[in-house]
Amino acid sequence: MLLVKKFGGSSVADPERIVRVASRVKTAVDRGDQVVVVVSAMGDTTDDLIGLARRLTPNPSTREMDMLLSTGEQVSIALVTMALQQIGCAAVSMTGPQAGIRTDGVYGKAQITGINPERMHHELEAGNVVVVAGFQGISESADITTLGRGGSDTTAVAVAASLKADFCEIYTDVDGVYTADPRIVPNVCKLDQISHDEMLELASLGAVVLHPRAVELAKLYGVPLVVRSSFNHNPGTLIKEVGNLEQSAVVTGIAHDTNVAKIGLFDVKDEPGIASRIFRALAAENVNVDMIIQGATRGGRNDIAFTTSRDDLAKALEVVYGIQDLVAAEGVCHAEDLAKVSIVGAGMVSFPGVAAEMFRALAEEGINIEMISTSEIKVSCVIGLKDVERAVRSLHDRFKLHEA
Amino acid sequence: MLLVKKFGGSSVADPERIVRVASRVKTAVDRGDQVVVVVSAMGDTTDDLIGLARRLTPNPSTREMDMLLSTGEQVSIALVTMALQQIGCAAVSMTGPQAGIRTDGVYGKAQITGINPERMHHELEAGNVVVVAGFQGISESADITTLGRGGSDTTAVAVAASLKADFCEIYTDVDGVYTADPRIVPNVCKLDQISHDEMLELASLGAVVLHPRAVELAKLYGVPLVVRSSFNHNPGTLIKEVGNLEQSAVVTGIAHDTNVAKIGLFDVKDEPGIASRIFRALAAENVNVDMIIQGATRGGRNDIAFTTSRDDLAKALEVVYGIQDLVAAEGVCHAEDLAKVSIVGAGMVSFPGVAAEMFRALAEEGINIEMISTSEIKVSCVIGLKDVERAVRSLHDRFKLHEA
Repeated sequence: MLLVKKFGGSSVADPERIVRVASRVKTAVDRGDQVVVVVSAMGDTTDDLIGLARRLTPNPSTREMDMLLSTGEQVSIALVTMALQQIGCAAVSMTGPQAGIRTDGVYGKAQITGINPERMHHELEAGNVVVVAGFQGISESADITTLGRGGSDTTAVAVAASLKADFCEIYTDVDGVYTADPRIVPNVCKLDQISHDEMLELASLGAVVLHPRAVELAKLYGVPLVVRSSFNHNPGTLIKEVGNLEQSAVVTGIAHDTNVAKIGLFDVKDEPGIASRIFRALAAENVNVDMIIQGATRGGRNDIAFTTSRDDLAKALEVVYGIQDLVAAEGVCHAEDLAKVSIVGAGMVSFPGVAAEMFRALAEEGINIEMISTSEIKVSCVIGLKDVERAVRSLHDRFKLHEA
Repeated sequence: MLLVKKFGGSSVADPERIVRVASRVKTAVDRGDQVVVVVSAMGDTTDDLIGLARRLTPNPSTREMDMLLSTGEQVSIALVTMALQQIGCAAVSMTGPQAGIRTDGVYGKAQITGINPERMHHELEAGNVVVVAGFQGISESADITTLGRGGSDTTAVAVAASLKADFCEIYTDVDGVYTADPRIVPNVCKLDQISHDEMLELASLGAVVLHPRAVELAKLYGVPLVVRSSFNHNPGTLIKEVGNLEQSAVVTGIAHDTNVAKIGLFDVKDEPGIASRIFRALAAENVNVDMIIQGATRGGRNDIAFTTSRDDLAKALEVVYGIQDLVAAEGVCHAEDLAKVSIVGAGMVSFPGVAAEMFRALAEEGINIEMISTSEIKVSCVIGLKDVERAVRSLHDRFKLHEA
């Protein structure tokens, strides 16, 4: 089999852990597998480099930041390769550019535009483990770029797609994907498998074992993903297309996000272009908006509410007060200390009563719902932060996920 | 003017020093110069990276070491560029490969085979300071290589040659090239200029302001080199071809090297191929041999002596004892705690009495000479380590270098 194995920063944080990664890779090689390893920068390296840059300038150029940060993964690939060679496992390291990972020129959050797997193929044929630097690539102008948050996961999936690997394994510090956060729910179950779409919702909703970009890419190219622990040999969770929707669980997992703030605008003038103005202004200030709710119009007036992270609240409020007159809003309100709880399941689409069941479970716990948003495979409710653990537990019970 | 300015690891050891380098570069830019900056890795970075590798393997592959170590300069170029941009100086960083620095494939001590200066030219024309990573290049197989000791000096000279720069300035922690080591001789003079050949001898003889490879390259391509301090604005020492030998000083400077050991073989058989056998065996074990003396033959027997560094003595002795029978040597002796003192001067060639004058000065100090070696522009004597400071001082006096 051809396997791509991705190890994050904490898995290669020091020489001892790097040795552990190497011996894990060797096990697969000894079994006869061809292996490509994708690694992130060691532990806190990236933060340390950012700290150095900040001592020179409050506003470093994005090109130079990428030049700086990409050294982190380069150190990792050299060390992992040395560790492999030390235990008699032929290996060769490759920077993103050497691995043929081409990107657009958007420094700091580049998108992979294509991969030329020629050299990786060549080294694999020659019997080498190929150790690729995650998170980085080369632009058309031959400049070094980085992929931004979740970049190494994305690299791993893209490399797996270009090599038509049998599996892309993402090693992390948990055993796989759970029905809910194990720190909150005592009787969670590890999921043996889950669809790309469900994983995408879970990843977007704060269950951060895997970056949504990587999941999207895996879905697009049909790459079978496995999330598993770098500390044990448990099988982990397989993320792949589920053939038969009927066989899917109605609710697969409960996700939650404790970093939610809400801003509401009352009695906004109800005319075309108002919402666009508000959210264009927020985007211009890089405020990440999550849910947006627009109430039913009554008498030409309208309420608009949206959520953002608590960190962005101050900036968002500034923007909103700045355009309050322009959009003729009668008032602005905001709340922090909110959370979001969501049920996710691909089977939900054929069971219309699921959302109602969720609302009832929350009501029975006396938990007030502030906002609701739904997609085909998830229902999210914004609730008080103080209620979130109770909400997750009661939903986990209600949908019988301990039997998953 | 087009200037190449090289700053070593201690000049960029922390953000404060990097800011100083940037402001120095800006001064030249404000004066209307085009500037290419070549930098080494920050302070102890290289040693730290080597330490990391050693924790994984006693014998890291040279390819992976180059992959690892080249990150050091990449961090430096990004930070120096940020510092320049922060003070309003347009700048762009380039790794060795991006700067078009091609090398052979000898990892760890690659030789530059050519430079494609196209992109550097392009960025200079666009009004940018170009900040190039020293010490590194790219091989024909698109692998990252490093140039080994003195690599950043060599990069600077090679870049200057390829761009036909007006000057290549090497910034260091001393004011320039002195007539002798200022720590030993109180009344040394800084030399305003010196020929490439003289500098080459001085550099090889332990006056380590500049790596001999860089001086050789500068000589080959006629690059005018300047050695100057990164801590003040003194003019430094200009190293260039001296047009008129007659105008050269007889003795330009006194060099010394305190790390010398000697091995002697007595009564070696005098037949062709004996010396070759000895020194091929030493080369095979990577023992660096400096002086070699073969005495006059008497009765078909011969004495051979050579010097090496104290660090290589044990290895050299092992080799020599191993082949003692093969070369039919009657005996082997060795001495450590030796030193070498040398007088260097391009004018020496037209004044045959200079060597005799040197021997007399040493004799008058009661200093015993163990070995002598000469070239057209230098005379070196191996003496006792305990005598070296007195020797340097008396020679400095004897050749009136305080008047230089």
